[in-house]
Amino acid sequence: MSDLKWSDKEKRVAREAFGVALAAEFAELIADFKVRAAAATEPDDLWAIEEHLRQRRKEIDWQYDYRYSQLIFIFARLLRDGRIREDQLFGLSEGKLSQIRRLASPE
Amino acid sequence: MSDLKWSDKEKRVAREAFGVALAAEFAELIADFKVRAAAATEPDDLWAIEEHLRQRRKEIDWQYDYRYSQLIFIFARLLRDGRIREDQLFGLSEGKLSQIRRLASPE
Repeated sequence: MSDLKWSDKEKRVAREAFGVALAAEFAELIADFKVRAAAATEPDDLWAIEEHLRQRRKEIDWQYDYRYSQLIFIFARLLRDGRIREDQLFGLSEGKLSQIRRLASPE
Repeated sequence: MSDLKWSDKEKRVAREAFGVALAAEFAELIADFKVRAAAATEPDDLWAIEEHLRQRRKEIDWQYDYRYSQLIFIFARLLRDGRIREDQLFGLSEGKLSQIRRLASPE
């Protein structure tokens, strides 16, 4: 899967779907952070927030690793987690879409 | 200096002055954090806050290392930085007070 060719059109579709999902992820992260920050009253709350941010940053870096060799897996996960809809991927080849669908469906 | 003896009374004085300074440090940290958190609008702001918290935590751990072998140095720094007043240390032996004053004064 890692040696799939991506046409310019597919790259645009991929970049757009990826960008929308990542922006939503960041918006949720910030909203969640604001709630935690507002509720913080003592140092331990701050250390917990620090730890949480570090952890989320690592996860997001890992989950949104935009390399063409990874995109099929990334989109499959995003689709399975409801973070993108299948129609956002229209424009990818039928081969790529079917791989994504297959990986996204429960075992 | 590290082998100074601390009487029970001196330990109480030290613990009290130390506790007050640390509580003030934490209160400032939390207030500063709340301002930064409220102003955060994007992921980079969150990563900067994460980095800042990690850094401050390390500094505070280091600056408030409550061991009797370190207390003279800690109180000298707190005094120099205006984080405690000299009268908060009254009850320590004159020997300890003069060491603290000496270390606290500008070169």
